[in-house]
Amino acid sequence: MLLILKQNANYSSLKEKLNNSSASYKFLDLYGKKLVVTWPDTYVENIKDESIEIAVKSKRQFPLVSNEWKKDPTIVKVKDVEIGGDRLVVAAGPCAVEDEEQVLTVAKAAKRAGAKLLRGGALKPRTSPYSFQGLGERGLEILRKVGDQVGLPVVSEIMDTRQIDMFKKYADMLQIGARNGQNFDLLKEAGKSGMPVLLKRGLGNTVDEWLLAAEYLLLEGNGNVVLCERGIRTFEKATRFTMDIGGMIAAKLQTHLPICADPSHPAGKRELVHSLALAAVAAGADMLLIEVHPNPEKALSDSEQQLTPDSFELLMNRIRALANVLGRKV
Amino acid sequence: MLLILKQNANYSSLKEKLNNSSASYKFLDLYGKKLVVTWPDTYVENIKDESIEIAVKSKRQFPLVSNEWKKDPTIVKVKDVEIGGDRLVVAAGPCAVEDEEQVLTVAKAAKRAGAKLLRGGALKPRTSPYSFQGLGERGLEILRKVGDQVGLPVVSEIMDTRQIDMFKKYADMLQIGARNGQNFDLLKEAGKSGMPVLLKRGLGNTVDEWLLAAEYLLLEGNGNVVLCERGIRTFEKATRFTMDIGGMIAAKLQTHLPICADPSHPAGKRELVHSLALAAVAAGADMLLIEVHPNPEKALSDSEQQLTPDSFELLMNRIRALANVLGRKV
Amino acid sequence: MLLILKQNANYSSLKEKLNNSSASYKFLDLYGKKLVVTWPDTYVENIKDESIEIAVKSKRQFPLVSNEWKKDPTIVKVKDVEIGGDRLVVAAGPCAVEDEEQVLTVAKAAKRAGAKLLRGGALKPRTSPYSFQGLGERGLEILRKVGDQVGLPVVSEIMDTRQIDMFKKYADMLQIGARNGQNFDLLKEAGKSGMPVLLKRGLGNTVDEWLLAAEYLLLEGNGNVVLCERGIRTFEKATRFTMDIGGMIAAKLQTHLPICADPSHPAGKRELVHSLALAAVAAGADMLLIEVHPNPEKALSDSEQQLTPDSFELLMNRIRALANVLGRKV
Amino acid sequence: MLLILKQNANYSSLKEKLNNSSASYKFLDLYGKKLVVTWPDTYVENIKDESIEIAVKSKRQFPLVSNEWKKDPTIVKVKDVEIGGDRLVVAAGPCAVEDEEQVLTVAKAAKRAGAKLLRGGALKPRTSPYSFQGLGERGLEILRKVGDQVGLPVVSEIMDTRQIDMFKKYADMLQIGARNGQNFDLLKEAGKSGMPVLLKRGLGNTVDEWLLAAEYLLLEGNGNVVLCERGIRTFEKATRFTMDIGGMIAAKLQTHLPICADPSHPAGKRELVHSLALAAVAAGADMLLIEVHPNPEKALSDSEQQLTPDSFELLMNRIRALANVLGRKV
Ligand SMILES: C=C(OP(=O)(O)O)C(=O)O
Ligand SMILES: C=C(OP(=O)(O)O)C(=O)O
Ligand SMILES: C=C(OP(=O)(O)O)C(=O)O
Ligand SMILES: C=C(OP(=O)(O)O)C(=O)O
Ligand SMILES: [Mn+2]
Ligand SMILES: [Mn+2]
Ligand SMILES: [Mn+2]
Ligand SMILES: [Mn+2]
Repeated sequence: MLLILKQNANYSSLKEKLNNSSASYKFLDLYGKKLVVTWPDTYVENIKDESIEIAVKSKRQFPLVSNEWKKDPTIVKVKDVEIGGDRLVVAAGPCAVEDEEQVLTVAKAAKRAGAKLLRGGALKPRTSPYSFQGLGERGLEILRKVGDQVGLPVVSEIMDTRQIDMFKKYADMLQIGARNGQNFDLLKEAGKSGMPVLLKRGLGNTVDEWLLAAEYLLLEGNGNVVLCERGIRTFEKATRFTMDIGGMIAAKLQTHLPICADPSHPAGKRELVHSLALAAVAAGADMLLIEVHPNPEKALSDSEQQLTPDSFELLMNRIRALANVLGRKV
Repeated sequence: MLLILKQNANYSSLKEKLNNSSASYKFLDLYGKKLVVTWPDTYVENIKDESIEIAVKSKRQFPLVSNEWKKDPTIVKVKDVEIGGDRLVVAAGPCAVEDEEQVLTVAKAAKRAGAKLLRGGALKPRTSPYSFQGLGERGLEILRKVGDQVGLPVVSEIMDTRQIDMFKKYADMLQIGARNGQNFDLLKEAGKSGMPVLLKRGLGNTVDEWLLAAEYLLLEGNGNVVLCERGIRTFEKATRFTMDIGGMIAAKLQTHLPICADPSHPAGKRELVHSLALAAVAAGADMLLIEVHPNPEKALSDSEQQLTPDSFELLMNRIRALANVLGRKV
Repeated sequence: MLLILKQNANYSSLKEKLNNSSASYKFLDLYGKKLVVTWPDTYVENIKDESIEIAVKSKRQFPLVSNEWKKDPTIVKVKDVEIGGDRLVVAAGPCAVEDEEQVLTVAKAAKRAGAKLLRGGALKPRTSPYSFQGLGERGLEILRKVGDQVGLPVVSEIMDTRQIDMFKKYADMLQIGARNGQNFDLLKEAGKSGMPVLLKRGLGNTVDEWLLAAEYLLLEGNGNVVLCERGIRTFEKATRFTMDIGGMIAAKLQTHLPICADPSHPAGKRELVHSLALAAVAAGADMLLIEVHPNPEKALSDSEQQLTPDSFELLMNRIRALANVLGRKV
Repeated sequence: MLLILKQNANYSSLKEKLNNSSASYKFLDLYGKKLVVTWPDTYVENIKDESIEIAVKSKRQFPLVSNEWKKDPTIVKVKDVEIGGDRLVVAAGPCAVEDEEQVLTVAKAAKRAGAKLLRGGALKPRTSPYSFQGLGERGLEILRKVGDQVGLPVVSEIMDTRQIDMFKKYADMLQIGARNGQNFDLLKEAGKSGMPVLLKRGLGNTVDEWLLAAEYLLLEGNGNVVLCERGIRTFEKATRFTMDIGGMIAAKLQTHLPICADPSHPAGKRELVHSLALAAVAAGADMLLIEVHPNPEKALSDSEQQLTPDSFELLMNRIRALANVLGRKV
């Protein structure tokens, strides 16, 4: 049950009633509203209190993430970039931060082409321990420096709860990766951090599980969440993962949170990235996350799927034309 | 090995050489070319003959379907409708033919909105034997009659080899359904029929298996094949099937055949159909197959996913705008 | 609704009542019972008649296949071999019939080791049209001849409705393959034939869809059906398919029909076949279908997964020991 | 490349050569051997040194986990319990630690029935933030206390790197859950801890990814790893997950590490647990992990799949009989 409270009311009698029920509950400030989430529903169905404006009984498992109580789309701000509004936001950058020159080259090209955020992994979740694991803090330093120089806010993947302070120092947005899509301690800490979060769908996770992962973030009082579809595991091996446009839309229809699509990881191959990006835009994505590398063939990770700056620029032109027809700016 | 032969040459010495090798081979007329397919490759690598224009060794398992030898996109003609050319072709109609009035209502609306083909199942592959199995020949009669009346060629699903003559009588294009995506006898007969074929990808089939199913058709000398992506089986249940845009593009990059997308069956729910349709168009589909019913809630099959005529018209407008930017007419 | 009728009663008043309702219905003789299936349930809930012994309202979609009305396990007889009884039945033989000597060698070895049925494909459903397609009728002749010579009933895959008469002539049991798991015309004809059917689960089919495929057979009055799990399509590629023991048991708990496991096709590799076979026996399979070839490396199909006769003999000894502990003979 | 070194040799010249190459390398003590892993292979192919006993070039991506260099099965000791040896080891206990009495009841019953390890989650990875999240440290205290009282070593799931010290204090074996199957920071810390690890396969992970996750542990010098198959995500929903016996065996054939099967989580329903457990034993599992609860219907997590103590005892008798035939004790 979601209780939307009157602002500046006295909540003490409500608290008492909740304490006397056997329900669990949590007071939250989200999107400028005072809320109480209580569960399970049945325990509090009859609670009435002066301070309650509306009580919303969600038909879904994720009352906060659901658009049942909040019908206006949420706009997530990363510095001055607004995700979820009129503009389609594109984040671009290398899979992994490799060195300053690499990031700078990409960042300049990305900015020129119209990207609004710079991405780049400093900590890389690699299937094999023998693969390049990322530059660590040094990578974040580079990303921060280049982002500032070029004038793009930066997003980078956090892999572990112990890294929160480091990311607060260097990053503007936390990326939670597909392999941590159900790392619940990390979700809780990212929620507590209050930082904007780009939450990838776990590669083996259903739409419901993805939205419930977001609910973990919101339940910590952090409403700055962008959901990111990046392909799921299926039997098909012609692509690296199967980009689930239908699942992305099914999510969008249930939530007020903005939705991002990452066409690079499902593609796995450069030549598929454009089509998947355009498909996601046409289907209604609010944001795209695209891997770009100055010299993809030499990349230390995901070398087959990264676009060259030229190909990215071409893609941006195609995206712009498409977005235009859909009534959106880039 | 694919041998492209000189026109009007004498092939008898080539035939003799092939007979003397232990290779299997087949002479074909496809797209105005004389061809020989021989296999396995290794058996004929050294065959040389006057009558051979070029010998193409395919890197893929489907030499005929592959675009290695035929770089221009194939245009499949269904009466006067061209699939695979400049125009994006939309086929619309009910999941199942239920009665004449139903089909007529939809056909008129579809035509008015810009559809170029009329679809409708007379024989329905139903998971349960207790579900409506289709009107049979009577359904085909209705479809034919309405198609002629409204001026739209008709496409309908064939389920069994014994029905070929019946379909020749009533239909302009054979649809082979997802449950028959590897019904090899049906593929062979559809190939022999020479009729245009809309070949759905089997719901559990890989892109390679789908292209090999098409190879069965071409190897019978029938090059009039449109490939249709309609969603694959995955763990995700928020949609009925997972529309595999990436797989569709992976197919397109390997073949000269036109590609169709069916957004209705993967959606499973009306409210997802528009987004999936637009995504498919943006990704480069040459054709769409969309279920439309005058009164979807009363439909005898697939009632949750069929669009109303009004919603279809709206979708056509959105598709037209999108196609326009992509340099395509509808 | 399933109506179990009194034997030798007068059914005319019941028929009249059914005709007067708007329900569909079918009279059947199954397992020595007179039955009427009617659908949808709601239309006939209130029908009462002298001739009705019990009316069973199934909670499942497959009333005939369900064990709600028939609690005793069905025993399917293939000549004198009983499947579903005390004995675990093993069918063995080559993937494809290649020549008489090949089949004879395997048949003798299989018989000696304890197999009770001889398998062998005369018509092969091959992913590629360039792969060996089977010997056709000649293959069935060989199988029949060898089966008679060695004293083993034979089972072989039928691929198309037009082949029913041919199979009646040569085979003791029809196999319906994984690619035809939802070929509904074939299911109907196999049902009408009355022959014992080994019904493979479609590689992309759920347990429910598999049981509904069996319902198609029973609804034609053919109760001689053995369900065969042979692996499903999943993301895992370390094996050819994923043998779904859990799904097999989930099926068994809902049906009176015997269950077979085919460990050869999910394994895809010889070295996995023993373990999968033993797992299936331990889980409760009533029958096993195992590919054995005198010289697997030379096999014209499925060469990596076929066992040598020696390995098969060893496996049979292991199966026998296991079955013994489980209270079953081989 | 894996270099197995002579004991007590002087490694300084080897170190120098490695430093002079551009290869990465790591010295390790594993299973009583001195080893160096170097990568990528090509960089060190020609290195020769006095101190090298054998250089093993693995054909697999996980040289340490692979059985190419270590042919004898690894026995993982958890206190005095040996996993991977002659005895089949069964770990039993509740999904979640709920209170002392609950754990004690189960622990006594489990011990009596023949279980050798006590399981129980103190930290629960729950899909929903509104589900019971576990008792935390208090849960570990209870588990430890009951384990000591009853005389069973305890295994419990760790969810985050910050919990390592707490687990060192209370647990005998770390469980890494299916949702953390690619939580690489957690894998590294679990590796460094040196504690025995029960490594579940990620629910969306391939066999190769699972073995590579284990490689992360061994590369930290921790060879005490048991691999646990617990079902993968597939389209089938008749069971909670699809237990991949084939994948489990494919893993076993490539590694020296012991393999555990968890039949409870793939089953999702009590009535399927016995069959899946027996199947896993027949296929060759070295260990089983089974959820048992004194009153499953009241359980705070996984209530549908937990066995009662009585059902567990019955299962143990069936397992014992089966193991016996397979030449194994319980
Ligand atoms: C690792 C990445 O993505 P994912 O978590 O989706 O695999 C990435 O964005 O580089
Ligand atoms: C049955 C149909 O499609 P599919 O074969 O893709 O399920 C259909 O087009 O109505
Ligand atoms: C083709 C066969 O099986 P399936 O239909 O299960 O692939 C076979 O039994 O040889
Ligand atoms: C949560 C558990 O398992 P898994 O990680 O396999 O889901 C468990 O063992 O209780
Ligand atoms: Mn990447
Ligand atoms: Mn339909
Ligand atoms: Mn076979
Ligand atoms: Mn559990």
